Order: sequence, then C-alpha cells, then structure tokens
Amino acid sequence: MKIAKQYISTAADHLIKTNALAAQAFEEVYSSILNNVTTGSDHFILNCTCKNCNGVVPVKERCYQILEEEFGWYREKPLTYFHKDAQKGGPIDVYKEFITGHSFFRSGLEFETGNISSAHRSMNKLCVGIKKGELDLAMLMMPTKNMSFYLTDRVSNYEELEPYFLLLDEVPFVVFGFDAEEYSVDAPLLPKGKDGMSPRTIRKWQYK
Amino acid sequence: MKIAKQYISTAADHLIKTNALAAQAFEEVYSSILNNVTTGSDHFILNCTCKNCNGVVPVKERCYQILEEEFGWYREKPLTYFHKDAQKGGPIDVYKEFITGHSFFRSGLEFETGNISSAHRSMNKLCVGIKKGELDLAMLMMPTKNMSFYLTDRVSNYEELEPYFLLLDEVPFVVFGFDAEEYSVDAPLLPKGKDGMSPRTIRKWQYK
Repeated sequence: MKIAKQYISTAADHLIKTNALAAQAFEEVYSSILNNVTTGSDHFILNCTCKNCNGVVPVKERCYQILEEEFGWYREKPLTYFHKDAQKGGPIDVYKEFITGHSFFRSGLEFETGNISSAHRSMNKLCVGIKKGELDLAMLMMPTKNMSFYLTDRVSNYEELEPYFLLLDEVPFVVFGFDAEEYSVDAPLLPKGKDGMSPRTIRKWQYK
Repeated sequence: MKIAKQYISTAADHLIKTNALAAQAFEEVYSSILNNVTTGSDHFILNCTCKNCNGVVPVKERCYQILEEEFGWYREKPLTYFHKDAQKGGPIDVYKEFITGHSFFRSGLEFETGNISSAHRSMNKLCVGIKKGELDLAMLMMPTKNMSFYLTDRVSNYEELEPYFLLLDEVPFVVFGFDAEEYSVDAPLLPKGKDGMSPRTIRKWQYK
C-alpha cells in the first residue's frame, strides 16, 4: 500500500530526527504498510466492485504479520497502568522494545478497525501509554476515506480523525493514512470478519 | 440526583477559584444534576427491578431542560472549527455564553448516552473546543457504574473513563459522576429511546 497522508506531531518529529531507535520504529511501521501487497503483485490492488465490499481485518493482519515476522514486534502488550483491567483499556495492538548498548525505546501501534468513536479511544489509550511513561512513541494507522469506501461499513478513516490531531501536538505521535495503489473489479475480495483468516499463531507479548 | 464522584482538572480548579463566571457555569451544571428529582419527591429514585431496565435519555433531558429553562443555556452549539461538517464532530450538547460588563466566558457540557468509545469522542470534542479557543470551560456528566447498571445497556460510566482523566490535567475540564439518591422497585421506570419524551421545543443555538 502507499502512505497517502501522514501526521507527525512536533514532538514525534523531533524524536525521529534525534533518536535512531525512534527513526527505526517509524521506518518499520512505514515498511509494513509499503510491503503490504496483493499476492503475485508488487503493489496493493483493492477490489472496487461496490461500497463496503472488502473486509478490513485482512489489511490489518498483513501489516501486523510483517511487523512480527520481519521486525520482531509483539502483539497485545497490556499497559501496566490499566492493571489488566480490560474494561479500562485493552492491550496495545503491536509493540516493540528497541534495545541497544545505551538506549531503550518502546513503541506502540494501533490499527483501529472499528468506527470513529473506537478510533478516539485508541488514540487516547496510546496517549495514556505515553503520559504514564510506558511508551516513547505512539503510532496509529488508518485507511484514507478513499480506501475506506470499499472496506467494512463504518470503519474509521484518516480524514474523520484528522480534525483531532491538534490534541496530539505535544505528544510523540504519528498517524499514517494508507491507501491502495490500484483499484480493480478483478482484484480478489478481502474476506470480512475472521472468515478466510489462516489460523496463524500470533506472537503475543504475554508468551514472550 | 447526587454527585457521587467528581474530577476537576488542575486548570479547571484554578479557573473556578479565580473567575466568577467559571464558578457560575460550574454551579449551574452542578444544580441541574442536584435538581433532577423524581416527580413528587425531593430526590431521585431509580427503579432497580433488573439490569438495564431504565432508559438513560430521560435523565439527560431533565438536566438539559433545567439548564435551558432555569439558567438560559442553549442546545447544539456547533464548533466553528468543524465548519458545520458533522462528520468531523457534532455540535456541543449544551452551551452558554456568560457576559458581564468586563468579562465573557463560554462553557460547554456533554452528557454522553452512548458507549464508552463515544464518551472518548465527546471528551476529545470538548478538548478541541478548548484548544481552538471556542470554549473556556468544558464539562462532561456521566452516571456512575453503580447507577449505569440499571440504565440502557452499555451506556458509558464515570469509572470507565476515569483512567483517561490524566489526559485532561492541563485542560480546564470537569467531569461529574452522578448517582440516584435512592433505588426502589416501586419507582417509575424511565422509558428507553425517545418513547415517552414530551415533544418539548428545545432552545437550539441556531435559532437564538
């Protein structure tokens, strides 16, 4: 896929320019989006037969799989602050601790496949992780409005959340708005729900 | 009803102590909760026959009605920032401009009757109003977990959003967690949805 729109907060921009591990975290998520391509192609082709014809979960799963398998990220990292109380906030979708000789850097990413309200909750959860010192860089990835038209009904899109990014100015926060490179009625439909997902074992943080 | 729990951010606390109009806005919302009582009683008695047996909308409407009729608040104030694009964010539920000889003070209140994700969106919308200089004090009112058990299924409660209040420290923000003073199986059931609501004309900002 391609990154059609991108928000990098002032705080995140500074961090990425001055901290090699922050830059690496950013690059890895960026790569997971770019390397999410249609099987047998070098880019992502979305079926555009009609509104809402594709599921969004396979798009997310493919990016997460790249982050896990190529870059060693973990899934479902709980925030200590929530004391495992899922009612207060679920785990961070994907998470990685970058460690070098002198440095330690923690990055969390969410890809909200629910509606716009859920995207607000994801955004706030990541901000809590930053504020409580459990994350150093927060990232969110969302389809653009253009792409979301052909994905699951009511899935939140980049443009819907964009008016709220000003709340993130001082938070080290990045939002990626991705889009397909090509639209075609001949492309394979992406299954909805969990149908058609291979029963791959995900790398959960708790089994690390 | 009574105010069982209350969050006043550092910024709001300072404002309420130093600005008479901020104190007045706070007091008016406080009063609308305290004066929301069961007809024929001096306090609020909630039917507790079973889980989710009451609707939450009548609780909200009564508070808003008090704010409108006794204190001159207006309903549905759009934020200029959203350019009337409801997709970006709907209007502020209730709003008042306090004007004295030398001062001008704007306060907005939301009562989120949807699920917890929607409460995050309401919170963020009010924060945007503050950040863009369209509100001077933001308030949110929610039932406590105790009371929400007997209200519409999945309605958000104070305790669910509480872990996120730390994001509001520097924002002039108040959250009220209200509860009934009494629970009784003999109290009248509050209707769900819009059933039983009188077709009262609300004081919309746009018709001011």
